[in-house]
Amino acid sequence: MNGAEALLRTLVGSDVDVCFANPGTSEMHFVAALDRVPEMRAVLTLFEGVATGAADGYARLAGKPAATLLHLGPGLGNGWANLHNARRAHVPLVNVVGDHATYHQRFDALLQSDLWGLARSTSAWQRSTMRAVDVGPDAADAVAASYGPPGRIATLVVPADVSWTEGAAPAPRRPVPSPSAVPAETVEGVADVLGSGARAVLLIGGAAMHERGLDAAARIAYATGAKLLAETFPPVQSRGGGLPDVEKLAYFGEMAMGQLDGARHLVLAGAKRPVSFFAYPGKPSDLVPEGMTVHELAGPAQDVPGALAALADALGADVRAPLEPARRPDRPSGRLTTESMAAAVGHLLPEDAIVVDESVTSGLSVPGATSAGPRHDWLAVTGGSIGQGLPAATGAAVAAPGRRVLSLEADGSAMYTLQALWTQAREGLDVTTLLLANHSYAILQFELARVGATGSGERAAAMLDLHHPVLDFVGLARGMGVPAERATTADELSSLLEQSFADSGPMLVEAVLA
Amino acid sequence: MNGAEALLRTLVGSDVDVCFANPGTSEMHFVAALDRVPEMRAVLTLFEGVATGAADGYARLAGKPAATLLHLGPGLGNGWANLHNARRAHVPLVNVVGDHATYHQRFDALLQSDLWGLARSTSAWQRSTMRAVDVGPDAADAVAASYGPPGRIATLVVPADVSWTEGAAPAPRRPVPSPSAVPAETVEGVADVLGSGARAVLLIGGAAMHERGLDAAARIAYATGAKLLAETFPPVQSRGGGLPDVEKLAYFGEMAMGQLDGARHLVLAGAKRPVSFFAYPGKPSDLVPEGMTVHELAGPAQDVPGALAALADALGADVRAPLEPARRPDRPSGRLTTESMAAAVGHLLPEDAIVVDESVTSGLSVPGATSAGPRHDWLAVTGGSIGQGLPAATGAAVAAPGRRVLSLEADGSAMYTLQALWTQAREGLDVTTLLLANHSYAILQFELARVGATGSGERAAAMLDLHHPVLDFVGLARGMGVPAERATTADELSSLLEQSFADSGPMLVEAVLA
Repeated sequence: MNGAEALLRTLVGSDVDVCFANPGTSEMHFVAALDRVPEMRAVLTLFEGVATGAADGYARLAGKPAATLLHLGPGLGNGWANLHNARRAHVPLVNVVGDHATYHQRFDALLQSDLWGLARSTSAWQRSTMRAVDVGPDAADAVAASYGPPGRIATLVVPADVSWTEGAAPAPRRPVPSPSAVPAETVEGVADVLGSGARAVLLIGGAAMHERGLDAAARIAYATGAKLLAETFPPVQSRGGGLPDVEKLAYFGEMAMGQLDGARHLVLAGAKRPVSFFAYPGKPSDLVPEGMTVHELAGPAQDVPGALAALADALGADVRAPLEPARRPDRPSGRLTTESMAAAVGHLLPEDAIVVDESVTSGLSVPGATSAGPRHDWLAVTGGSIGQGLPAATGAAVAAPGRRVLSLEADGSAMYTLQALWTQAREGLDVTTLLLANHSYAILQFELARVGATGSGERAAAMLDLHHPVLDFVGLARGMGVPAERATTADELSSLLEQSFADSGPMLVEAVLA
Repeated sequence: MNGAEALLRTLVGSDVDVCFANPGTSEMHFVAALDRVPEMRAVLTLFEGVATGAADGYARLAGKPAATLLHLGPGLGNGWANLHNARRAHVPLVNVVGDHATYHQRFDALLQSDLWGLARSTSAWQRSTMRAVDVGPDAADAVAASYGPPGRIATLVVPADVSWTEGAAPAPRRPVPSPSAVPAETVEGVADVLGSGARAVLLIGGAAMHERGLDAAARIAYATGAKLLAETFPPVQSRGGGLPDVEKLAYFGEMAMGQLDGARHLVLAGAKRPVSFFAYPGKPSDLVPEGMTVHELAGPAQDVPGALAALADALGADVRAPLEPARRPDRPSGRLTTESMAAAVGHLLPEDAIVVDESVTSGLSVPGATSAGPRHDWLAVTGGSIGQGLPAATGAAVAAPGRRVLSLEADGSAMYTLQALWTQAREGLDVTTLLLANHSYAILQFELARVGATGSGERAAAMLDLHHPVLDFVGLARGMGVPAERATTADELSSLLEQSFADSGPMLVEAVLA
């Protein structure tokens, strides 16, 4: 057995059975081995940023890593931005990066680069395999390393001759490490704080954003009067279907400080201490008000939902606020605005859907329109690097067949990794892309003012404007094999969403917002 | 004056007056300053790989650096692959990368990353400016550093507060360093070798590929009987209009070894010692045959054309082989094949055109069909990382207004950085994209066999196939505002090229090859 086959068999044996790939010559033996290891599903992408973003979306839903297959330094470079988002999401992810043959590297052939420096700049674990006999064990180590906890990026560099040399063998699966339990003293300490009657905020994130954590957090808040907030961009938030709808920490720092204002204690459960997304002249970076004491109940390497459940028990917090009754917005009609668009989504969102949100400014009304609707999962841009939505939607759909994925996408963001649509068509994935076209980098129009960049005029404004020429997303999607239509009224949007949710396979709906 | 304005004024004062930009919040002060420094032309791109590839194409034609404007680590990551190509092209290029404010970095906000490690993995020079008073001098240093020689990537990281703080001032232009002269002894030594009568190969590249170097090299070959070869992927080759047509070193190693076979000496002038592009089982990496002596006349940091001219003088090589008469292929008709496509290009290529070649396998007949035609420049994928063609064509068109750019593009390669088309439309650039659709990664079908990846079947073949679904490049181009048509016969292709060459502005022609 050659190294490539041992690599594939080790991955599959370690429960990594999906690979998002954009291979080149140095990965051809891996590609050839796919026919001998049919348990591995290889999903072709046209660009590496699609592969890494898809692996992120996949891991958020599947709770286990996908592999990527990337071509040398440039391939890993193209995947870098979405690896950044994946790193912030604390997902497990295994990059397999082909490299020149070991003996070829000293010749500095044209595709040679500082692959190792690049890998180190984005990975928590990296290894270059130097012998075919090592590739099985190294691959098993990579998968184990990716689990953390918390989940992380593991990058395995595989020179071409390691792939093609015989004498390799698959390695057995390594144990999957579990998040560690939070010590009882920590839980008791936080229980004392929250039980003291002093005003407090409980800020949750990460693994707390699923049913068990949300339920415990809501009971704690109800029992103690603590204000419950969630991090701004959680990797996956379970919503609807009777789950508590948790207010998010605001993106803009001054609004976030308002949310924290007046409390004496801040308890963190799976969330980081709040900091401003960007710095602004004269505004604080650290959003924790003076005089507030910060307590960490559980960090991302720990069992966050377990800690919240233990805290609820310690506080005797058995009940939570009465649920709001299930409720959907009425079917909207008339002008297509950010509000009527949100109502259409809320009116029609299918049971058990997955919403991937990269709508930036245009989608701000959608959370409110869906919070009391059917159960769904909501994925955010965890690292703030746009170009993550369409790839993550692709990976989520691979991870969760039978569930409809709604990809809420802004026009500016969509153009970073639009190639994801082709993979959605190729794989027949159940992804509805709702493309919200405002023909601008609207967020930057706010930011230009917020950073105090005064005196700017036409030339600055032109850098934030996408009108010249207008992007035709219907044409772009159809060009990649995805059926697409344009909605200019709320009625048209509702009909098109209804059609897409009823059909199988991908569709793009371009909503031209008034 | 704030740091951003001092940065812009320093760049302009250093003769860097084009910036390919994809800004975010941390670059808003730079954007705002554009209205105060109208000498800087900012060209908006939808993806950072377009910005870096355009800066590469620009520098190859302009002979001076463009700036890029990129957003933190993810922005530089997205630009990495085309920076790799630019590095291999030895062009000067100045990245301006915005960063979080200096005091904000310790808070690890979501967009924080190992920007420094990333910059180091692709740049020959990098600096992070920590005070507004330093930004002028640092920018002037960055431009000077980018000139090398040889040209290189200089990356200046500018935290947001450095941009917005007052008290900065532009710095004066630093001297532009020149390539060093080759010592007379070196020239004499090579003259002795070539004058000895022993069989020799003269391998030229880089700066030798323009008129002066080509002419001297051709005279040397004619006078001494040395075989003249050129590196496989030169940054810019001047062709046509009576210039000698130099045979390229073949991409496949065994063919390259055949070209070198039988010679005793190999003289390098601006080219690297030949190595195989990839390693293959049982085949050598170093392509220099045993017993061949390698002599370097001039490296990329030296005055390569000057060295060739001095060598020609030392050899008394005053004349070169008689020119082939100017000749264009006949206008083709009938089936659209790689040959009739090449004939159409050769028949119609405008005087003084710029050809950007990322056609991979489909364009192999075009060089032969254009070598005796009108004068033109030919740009290759210097680092072997695909996704460079459309951005480089964009930058070349910005650098050379009034000249038609012909972008020969393969369908697989086009999908990495297709967003370049939007910038071409926005700027009204005279770029004709000839999209050669064979619906596959055809090069990899060869490579799969060449690396000895036997036993592969349907699943491997599927990873190299782009038929499902077929990409509609006419729809994709129109979706980004570029007029586009499809050609299915040689006559249609000729008519469409004729139309595009006569019009101003961009156009895409999809050639469906039989």
